[in-house]
Parts: sequence; structure tokens; C-alpha cells
Amino acid sequence: MSDSTRLQRQVEFILEIDRLKQVLRQTVTTARTRQENSAEHSWHTALMAIILSEYADNPQIDVFRVLKMLLIHDMVEIDAGDTYCYDDHAREDQHERELQAAERIFNLLPMDQARQLQSLWEEFEARQTLNSRFANALDRLQPLINNYYTDGKTWQKHGVKRHQVVARMCCIEEGAPELWRYALGLIDDAVVRGILTE
Amino acid sequence: MSDSTRLQRQVEFILEIDRLKQVLRQTVTTARTRQENSAEHSWHTALMAIILSEYADNPQIDVFRVLKMLLIHDMVEIDAGDTYCYDDHAREDQHERELQAAERIFNLLPMDQARQLQSLWEEFEARQTLNSRFANALDRLQPLINNYYTDGKTWQKHGVKRHQVVARMCCIEEGAPELWRYALGLIDDAVVRGILTE
Repeated sequence: MSDSTRLQRQVEFILEIDRLKQVLRQTVTTARTRQENSAEHSWHTALMAIILSEYADNPQIDVFRVLKMLLIHDMVEIDAGDTYCYDDHAREDQHERELQAAERIFNLLPMDQARQLQSLWEEFEARQTLNSRFANALDRLQPLINNYYTDGKTWQKHGVKRHQVVARMCCIEEGAPELWRYALGLIDDAVVRGILTE
Repeated sequence: MSDSTRLQRQVEFILEIDRLKQVLRQTVTTARTRQENSAEHSWHTALMAIILSEYADNPQIDVFRVLKMLLIHDMVEIDAGDTYCYDDHAREDQHERELQAAERIFNLLPMDQARQLQSLWEEFEARQTLNSRFANALDRLQPLINNYYTDGKTWQKHGVKRHQVVARMCCIEEGAPELWRYALGLIDDAVVRGILTE
């Protein structure tokens, strides 16, 4: 591959991922005017990794790798769309749709970089390493914080109940036990405030 | 500071920066349906740092530090707003407005982290280090690519001319000479295509 072809492929990828700005999630921004999109969600979780790394379950964590994982973790949604975490029907074929998306999108890049990003994404999805567990914890915590501070707007819209939120959030415990205690406090308080149903 | 107060301050900061999702830039997304906001722009530039680091002027570059810089570089716009780069009037007091914003926003955090982010932001602004020069190069290149691939929508709206774009973009040369040659190619081609005025 000539140098100019390599750069051209990289620019094509950079253009393609702009489309993630159009993928809407269920969570609303704190301004409450609209749903957030997956690009800005990814930015928000990456910032959380910088600020909250001290709460990772293990001090061996590699924050640089966590950042890269969080920046790319939702890229497959360009093709596969955002799957609402409490929509069991849509989640049935989610993994298959996302695998195909990863294959197409990462392979826009030169092969060495395609492999690097594919590997980061698979690590994030598998939740087996310390880094990916911490990254997943933040991916769950961010919408919880936004939901709690927008009076549970999204929970109410979809009739989500406490036990569903706890089940969804409990992987925060795997990656960041202290943040899990904090999250559980928000969930319980949300029930007391009447913005989340018991 | 007790541990719970420390976490509470960190969460307050995480909530506050959600507001960057409401700050609109002049650049439009490639879908051409709306202006992009500063949170998703920051995400996009961070991704570019991962993909394009091989073009940095110096192999000594610390991509982790570049990522952190890019993720926070526009945070001051929560208070100061986005200043359009070709609006000379608005740029007169830009630095003063942004300094005050940095002071307020970063100081929501515990002091050690406030200092860390303030220092990253000052380094980015000063453009004296290798890392900040590369970060600035990407911050300029991203809107150029989006503009070029949306038929110069923003240039035409504001009547921006070639020499203004070249002057604005030339700090790409400082941080990534090869990307500067690529950028200059886009600019010249934009003139040929009639989407940027000579």
C-alpha cells in the first residue's frame, strides 16, 4: 500500500465515523432538550475514565487502553443502531448485527489498524480483562447519572423498574466496586424520590 | 476532604461537562442536517489522534497525553461559547473569557485533578510542546475535512476565502507536516471545485 493510499483509507474511516453523531441513545442530556448521541456519550465516558480511574478495582489498570476502548466501543452502532438495554427482543440478534458492523467499519482502515481496533472492541465486549471491566463500568454509570439527574425521564418513558436497573448496572461492581456502592445509592434514592418504580 | 466528598465533586464535574453537548460549532456533520457540537467534535479529534499518530512531527509523541488534551480542549466553551475562528471581533476577548471558564469549571474537581486538567488545557493553548502541536493540528484538520466533504457549506455561509483557511490551518504544519500537505491538497481542490473562493 502506498503512503497516500494508507492516508486516504484513514481519512475514509475518519469520515465514516462522523455518522456516529447521528445515532441516538435513549438517555437524554442534562439540558433535557434531546436524546444524546453515541459520539458524545463516548466522549463523556472517556472523560469519566480520566477522572474516576482511582476507583478501578485494580491499580494495574491501563487508562490509555481504557480510553481507546471507550472512544471506539459504540462505533458498531453506525450500522447496527443503538440497542436499548431493556429491550430484550432487540437484544436477541444484537451481537450478530454488531459483529458484522465491526467487520465492515474497522476494515475501512489499513489492516494493522483494523486489527488493533477490532481487538480493542472484542476486549470491551468480552469483559474479561481488568481494563474492559472498568470501561464497561463507566459505560453503565454514565447513563445512570444522566437518568438520575433528569428525574428518571427515560426510566419512566419505558416503564423500567428498579430490579432491571440493578441487573443492568451490576457489572459496575466487577470493574469499580466503590462506584457500584455509589450507583446503588442513586438507584435507591431514585425509588424514594418516586422517579423509579420499585 | 472525605472520600465521599471527593467522589461527589467528581460527579458534579461529570454532570457539568454534559453541557458541552449543547455548545454548537459552525462545522456541520457529514449528514448535513445540523451543526456539530463541541463534545462530539472532541470525540472525533481524539479518534483522529489514535488513527493518525504516525504522522506526528516527532516519534516521541505521547498519544495518551494528546488524547487527554483533545478530550478537554473545548471544555471552557461551556461558559465562553464557541468562538468562530474567522470572527476577528469575537476573538478579541476570547482568551480572557476562556481563562475565567477554565478557572471555574476545572475547580469543580478535587484540587489535584483541577491542576492536572488546567495544566493540560494551558499546554494545548500554548502550542509549545510536541504533544500540544500535534493535538492542535488535529483540532484544525477535523473541521477542514468535514467542510470539504460537505461541499464547503460553512465557508460559503460565512464568505470565507482561501487565504483565511490557509492562515488558520497552517499550524497543522507545526504538528504534522505530512497532514499539512494533505490539507493543502484539499484546500486547493476546494478552490478548483468552486466551493471555496480564491
